[in-house]
Amino acid sequence: MTTRREQTSQESRELILVAAAELFAEKGYRQTTFADVADRSGISRGSIPWHFGSKEGLLLAVLERSLHLIRLGLTEQPEDVEAGFDRLAEGARALVALPTTRLFVTLLVEALEPGSPIHGRYLEIHDTLREHCRRWLERLPLPPGLPAEALAVTIVGACIGIHQQWLLAPDRVAPDQALAALRTLVTRAVRPVGD
Amino acid sequence: MTTRREQTSQESRELILVAAAELFAEKGYRQTTFADVADRSGISRGSIPWHFGSKEGLLLAVLERSLHLIRLGLTEQPEDVEAGFDRLAEGARALVALPTTRLFVTLLVEALEPGSPIHGRYLEIHDTLREHCRRWLERLPLPPGLPAEALAVTIVGACIGIHQQWLLAPDRVAPDQALAALRTLVTRAVRPVGD
Repeated sequence: MTTRREQTSQESRELILVAAAELFAEKGYRQTTFADVADRSGISRGSIPWHFGSKEGLLLAVLERSLHLIRLGLTEQPEDVEAGFDRLAEGARALVALPTTRLFVTLLVEALEPGSPIHGRYLEIHDTLREHCRRWLERLPLPPGLPAEALAVTIVGACIGIHQQWLLAPDRVAPDQALAALRTLVTRAVRPVGD
Repeated sequence: MTTRREQTSQESRELILVAAAELFAEKGYRQTTFADVADRSGISRGSIPWHFGSKEGLLLAVLERSLHLIRLGLTEQPEDVEAGFDRLAEGARALVALPTTRLFVTLLVEALEPGSPIHGRYLEIHDTLREHCRRWLERLPLPPGLPAEALAVTIVGACIGIHQQWLLAPDRVAPDQALAALRTLVTRAVRPVGD
């Protein structure tokens, strides 16, 4: 059983993580200060290092939480290609709607720096998405020339790239239509139909 | 006719642009100084502002040059879906091999900042790629449910996302195989074949 104090501490931690994810997405990791996080979360500035040690610790915890949320969303394996695509479209729409999704773009540059502390965690997020997609594809009747592993990179890549084009030009790019086109491409490849 | 002095000035400009593109890609825009660019290019530090005004002017010129190179590579419209994919695969392989391609990832975060001076130029690069892809797709017998505009976002997105996954994990992601899978997906959608 959790005590009242533990519960409050857990709640503070969550409020700090939500505020930090928003700020890292909006301002970038380097430009965000503990004071900004305290302002946004309503939690005193002094308790942030108590929870997370350093700003790097806070960043790792933000990524850990994102990875946890992604894994929760991926626990069930869809039964067939249509159900899988319903799940993909649903997940991709949720991704586009979340204010913190920009975080993944903001942090990509940090993750690419040599010796970056978040490189490993960021890589885990990509691995998790690819692995989930590959396991789903392996259960489908893929034609020769379309190995599940390569196709998983293509599908995850398309979701990443569609999202980024939309972030940059929300009035010129319709992510729902691009995801529908991706769905049509894969369903036609798996179950070919005549013209 | 260009004079010797003009030619030398043009050469210096080019050397500065190549060095700046490499450094922005490696260290990020903010971390790069005129002194770094002078060191890398072998051109005196003082002549950089003479050519480009400010660091922002240098960044815009780097992007202008990238856009010019991309446009040069896209001038010819491929004749059919196979030739189009040969061109795409060739372009995508060149993209992966170039040391400065990371620049587009590094600058994406800058481009997403509200009021960013490079937002417009970055958007033009995406627009150019999508427009080229759309014009090519419009000449193909696309089936119903696959509009050229949406499919262009998907294809450009897949190239962006495959490249980024490879940048992050070059030992786990095979970009050639993912591009081959993309090619198979599109050719099967355009000219369906039985299993």
